[in-house]
Amino acid sequence: MDHLWEKTLSSQEIFKGKIIEVRVEEVELPNGQKSNREIVKHPGAVAIITLTSENKLLLVRQYRKPLDRVIYEIPAGKLEPGENPLDCAKRELEEETGCTSASLIHIQSFYTSPGFADEIIHIYYADQLVKQANGPGLDQDEFLDLVEVTLEEAHQLIKEQKIYDAKTVFAVQYLQLKKYGEL
Amino acid sequence: MDHLWEKTLSSQEIFKGKIIEVRVEEVELPNGQKSNREIVKHPGAVAIITLTSENKLLLVRQYRKPLDRVIYEIPAGKLEPGENPLDCAKRELEEETGCTSASLIHIQSFYTSPGFADEIIHIYYADQLVKQANGPGLDQDEFLDLVEVTLEEAHQLIKEQKIYDAKTVFAVQYLQLKKYGEL
Repeated sequence: MDHLWEKTLSSQEIFKGKIIEVRVEEVELPNGQKSNREIVKHPGAVAIITLTSENKLLLVRQYRKPLDRVIYEIPAGKLEPGENPLDCAKRELEEETGCTSASLIHIQSFYTSPGFADEIIHIYYADQLVKQANGPGLDQDEFLDLVEVTLEEAHQLIKEQKIYDAKTVFAVQYLQLKKYGEL
Repeated sequence: MDHLWEKTLSSQEIFKGKIIEVRVEEVELPNGQKSNREIVKHPGAVAIITLTSENKLLLVRQYRKPLDRVIYEIPAGKLEPGENPLDCAKRELEEETGCTSASLIHIQSFYTSPGFADEIIHIYYADQLVKQANGPGLDQDEFLDLVEVTLEEAHQLIKEQKIYDAKTVFAVQYLQLKKYGEL
């Protein structure tokens, strides 16, 4: 057993919503004392770094209620129960951009907020896009604008705090490293 | 008004914990229909990419209850109420590493999970470390191991899914780009 491990003494469900679940767990700390941990459970998500044949990055402009603002993000979406991340990436790519890709590659996964949430995000890279006849098909409560930007424009959007989230900042750095042949 | 904006019709407090607050808000969507948004409010955080004089990255090994596992992260911590992010970065650097830095520079901020949380993380870069006589001074419920790794070792930790969170993956990419003189 790792000496940093915390033993769960009790676990209480506080909220079970459509997307997140909130629990408070009492733990025994490594020094034997007790503490409470507030935990958000999330189904996990995928995001896709999508490059057009003109080497432009596809972004979605989307209103985010928790921030009360519109930001630019790489296409992304939550995993359905039991859904394989690759299938989810294919689905979200088509839903949000109206494209499919013959080449959808997993490049990285990471937890977004390990201090309080178990959300993991699986990042894929897609190029060789094929536009589908029926175009994007969004969820009922989803509204977004699709835009294409160069890497330079993406950097400008970061400076202007319009790209302002972990997965999209990661995507821009990834493309920058790709330029150096590092990836 | 942005055409993607959602109007808040009602906002209900579900949970107010020590760290997070959970709300459910009813919104009017751009098409006039109604939906609910589940929102986690978080005080925000800082994280510090800390480089030793031997060009090693300081990481903390920490058990994360939401994941039920130990991962390696760059030093980080939550903002106290009203605390300035730079002051928080100075405090967390000293608490978690036992060092201060004459050069603590803000390099990027990002939201970690804009779909359901308002957590923002401010990333700083620190080198020219000065070891303080009293060493690290952790919070009562905080237990961690401090380790130093080369950039190559950090890449290996990513491969082994021991570095597995957004801010630390960002940090490794950042140092890689710095090598190319991009930053």
